[in-house]
Formats: sequence, C-alpha cells, structure tokens
Amino acid sequence: MILEHADIRIDPLKQSAFEEAILRGVTTVIAQAKGFRGCKVNRSVETPGRYLLMIEWDTLEDHTVGFRGSDLFPQWRAIVGPFFVQPPVVEHLQLVAQS
Amino acid sequence: MILEHADIRIDPLKQSAFEEAILRGVTTVIAQAKGFRGCKVNRSVETPGRYLLMIEWDTLEDHTVGFRGSDLFPQWRAIVGPFFVQPPVVEHLQLVAQS
Repeated sequence: MILEHADIRIDPLKQSAFEEAILRGVTTVIAQAKGFRGCKVNRSVETPGRYLLMIEWDTLEDHTVGFRGSDLFPQWRAIVGPFFVQPPVVEHLQLVAQS
Repeated sequence: MILEHADIRIDPLKQSAFEEAILRGVTTVIAQAKGFRGCKVNRSVETPGRYLLMIEWDTLEDHTVGFRGSDLFPQWRAIVGPFFVQPPVVEHLQLVAQS
C-alpha cells in the first residue's frame, strides 16, 4: 500500500465550490481507477486555501503509471484543476508504523 | 477530531535509529496524552529523510495547549528532537470528506 499526498492550494473564497468539486472528482472519477483503496480530503486549519488530499493506492505505479496514464486523469483534472492557484505538490508515502 | 500533520526532516543515514525512536516516543509518551486517538508515521518515497507524522487528537487544544504544555512534551522532544535537521513544520487539518 502507498499513500499519495497532494498539497493543494486554492483561492480561499472558493472553498465550498472546491470542496464540492473535489469530492465529486474523487467519487465519480478516481474511485474507478485500478488500485484505488480510499481517500481523505483535509483542510488546513492555519492556512486558508490549503488542502491535503491523501489517496491510498495498492502500488505506487497504480497512481503514477496507471491512473496518470488513463483517460480518468484528464477527467479528474477538468473537475479540480480550475481551482488550483499553483501546481499541486505530490509525494508518495510509505507507512512505517501506526498506533 | 483534528489531525496534527508534522513534516519532519532527518539525516537519511539515521533512518532506522529514527524510526525506532519515533515509534518509541509515540507509544511510550504521546499515547499517554489526553485526547490522543491514534498516530501514523509515514516515510517519503521521493525525499530521503522526510517523514510525515500524523496524529489524531480529540480537539486542537489537546495538542497545542494540553500536550505541548504538559511534561510529556519535553520527554517526547528528548527522544526525537536529536534527529531533527530543521524544526518540524506543523499544521492542523480538519477532515472534509473521505471515501
């Protein structure tokens, strides 16, 4: 399992429209992708307009090759891309421990 | 519920000692704090030495006032602080949606 960690910045005045859009994009587009396990959308308390989107994938390649190379990717970007005020910063994380 | 999101940088050569220490710090110190619900330690795939520590608290104040003002905080810092190559960047996140 791998966690995609996307740091997203939007115009804080568009918060409610963005939250509706990202939820729709996840449930109608990303959830169809091979290897998708689940997703959380988190809003920063301290930084208006900052969101962290965290998506669990079976493997790194399910995201970087499978999803990004599929026709789902432009569908997703068409829904959420117009809100981005800068390109999202994406990293992938491996769970070391949990308690 | 609130998610503490701490962006931690260490010397990648000290990875295994740090992972042992942070797990010990969480289970023996942070887990005792009022309002602690659970914790995940994640290692970046792309950036050696980068970790994201995510801790669920009942409320924001359980972390920022309760934990940081308690004698647990210096105990925690004594265990993990020596590994930090820069101060951790901490934000708090509110869950907007999950699927």
